[in-house]
Amino acid sequence: MRLNLLSAVALTAAIAVSSVAAAADALPSWKDGKAKQAIVQFVKQVTTKGGSKFVPLAERIAVFDNDGTLWGEQPMYFQAAFVLDRVKALAPKYPEWKEKEPFKSALAGDLKGVAAGGEKGLLELVAATHADTTSEEFEKAVKDWLAAAKHPRFNRPYTDLVYQPMLELLAFLRANGFKTYIVSGGGVEFIRAFSEKVYGVPPEQVVGSSIKVKYELRDGKPVIARLPEIDFIDDKAGKPVGIQKFIGRRPLMAFGNSDGDFEMLEWTTSGPGPRFGLLVHHDDAVREWAYDRESHVGRLKRGLDEGPQRGWVIASMKSDWRRVFPFDK
Amino acid sequence: MRLNLLSAVALTAAIAVSSVAAAADALPSWKDGKAKQAIVQFVKQVTTKGGSKFVPLAERIAVFDNDGTLWGEQPMYFQAAFVLDRVKALAPKYPEWKEKEPFKSALAGDLKGVAAGGEKGLLELVAATHADTTSEEFEKAVKDWLAAAKHPRFNRPYTDLVYQPMLELLAFLRANGFKTYIVSGGGVEFIRAFSEKVYGVPPEQVVGSSIKVKYELRDGKPVIARLPEIDFIDDKAGKPVGIQKFIGRRPLMAFGNSDGDFEMLEWTTSGPGPRFGLLVHHDDAVREWAYDRESHVGRLKRGLDEGPQRGWVIASMKSDWRRVFPFDK
Repeated sequence: MRLNLLSAVALTAAIAVSSVAAAADALPSWKDGKAKQAIVQFVKQVTTKGGSKFVPLAERIAVFDNDGTLWGEQPMYFQAAFVLDRVKALAPKYPEWKEKEPFKSALAGDLKGVAAGGEKGLLELVAATHADTTSEEFEKAVKDWLAAAKHPRFNRPYTDLVYQPMLELLAFLRANGFKTYIVSGGGVEFIRAFSEKVYGVPPEQVVGSSIKVKYELRDGKPVIARLPEIDFIDDKAGKPVGIQKFIGRRPLMAFGNSDGDFEMLEWTTSGPGPRFGLLVHHDDAVREWAYDRESHVGRLKRGLDEGPQRGWVIASMKSDWRRVFPFDK
Repeated sequence: MRLNLLSAVALTAAIAVSSVAAAADALPSWKDGKAKQAIVQFVKQVTTKGGSKFVPLAERIAVFDNDGTLWGEQPMYFQAAFVLDRVKALAPKYPEWKEKEPFKSALAGDLKGVAAGGEKGLLELVAATHADTTSEEFEKAVKDWLAAAKHPRFNRPYTDLVYQPMLELLAFLRANGFKTYIVSGGGVEFIRAFSEKVYGVPPEQVVGSSIKVKYELRDGKPVIARLPEIDFIDDKAGKPVGIQKFIGRRPLMAFGNSDGDFEMLEWTTSGPGPRFGLLVHHDDAVREWAYDRESHVGRLKRGLDEGPQRGWVIASMKSDWRRVFPFDK
């Protein structure tokens, strides 16, 4: 009996050691440095049974921004590229768009012209390209677009432009009992169309901006009809609201890249007990892009200024990531 | 090698047989009858690898109404009892309520008087009892109430009035890889305060009606403030909408008890592939209550008329359930 007990202890210790080793190996695209160490150490602490910082399985929630955190967002949000392409695809049905803003600018690929129409113009574009379909039709439209469209710089499908280190991080957290959520300013149904396949995040773990929908029968067949009206904007202070609405529990870890994620990291890391916040810093113009304080897309100023004193990790794309995209060598 | 392979096959077969047996035993409070058979057979079909009706893990979503399906709803919705008690608890802070409807009626426990105030009065009650708190304060208020309040007929905590057969069903489905969701007309944060402990359903798997919330800093501390404004009503045609918003995927199985669940079952069972719908019929005045077509609470008319021809199972509380509540012998 005594010997068996000792063997069991030795075996458990061996498993524990190998599991830490496995943890380190689970993030091969993260260079050994402060960011990777902070992630691995935090996960080890909250998953060590009997440790002072142990967190039960049910409370292991990690939230990830999407644009600029899990995939690229330059030269424009990928969903904006979808909108422009969809305006072109729908244009034959709406000949009046040729002369009518914001469609005229959208058809010309003129983002400045679109922006000149302000919020009203953007809402018209969203209504025209995201509504007037059922949920199933919209899902198909997004999937068809993702299968056909190519990113202008890399000449690859947009879903190739996901960050390899973040894919590894998602898998590492799930292997440690975390539920991984996307909490994005982007459209929830746009992201759901690819999140499971690309990130391993199922539709029910995607929180995002949304338009209103309505249940109705069409020729006796039930459908979810998408309406031309904004329901919820999941950005900035809307992110903690989205987290409360959809998850109903404060996350343990939050990952973002812009000041649109500030409140999400603030809400997450101000909870009691161990909490973790990380911002991806786009400082790699060679492999990806370099932008922060002055950028229109993914502006990161307050996070850089206040993040470190709040204990948030600033991960440098240039120095912390061995690879950026899965197709990088 | 050959022998080993045969042993492995024999072992697998033994596991398969014992797992079917385990399935039958997992629902001891369901009498052997059509309802139980239909449940067990459906779950067996969708979980049998290689079978024509096999459904991958990720798509195994089961949705449950709460009031009247997972716990009682007589003599009034339990959340209504919370509202009346909370009006009494808050009344000292609002002396004007003594003379002001709907509070005057609520303080007198006069539901007819409350109802006379119509929707406007109800919204005032919801605002007074559910808003003007943070999410954490509200959760505490519900938990404190559940710990103290007693059901008038059974003189037990309301959370004792959950249905034992449905607890077994939730566990049985989860053991078979299902994600179990609550989709309720009741308040989402009210249900979240006890769903994990009582049903094993975590907060992120509760969909319900909601008021608006706002993220803000109070004395530098982030809070989710609850606002006196309805955000979403998750009832009738709102249930498929809630399912789309929060889950983003059509469920495989749906369980309800009233015509408020009709559209949820319709949406669920009109999907492609195998689908399952079940309505709990309250026909047991001795152990619980008997009500259906004419009831104000939990009215069930259309479901009884159209359910069977749609292939929905009508489960009789009286004949299909061996026990109703966990405290029944």
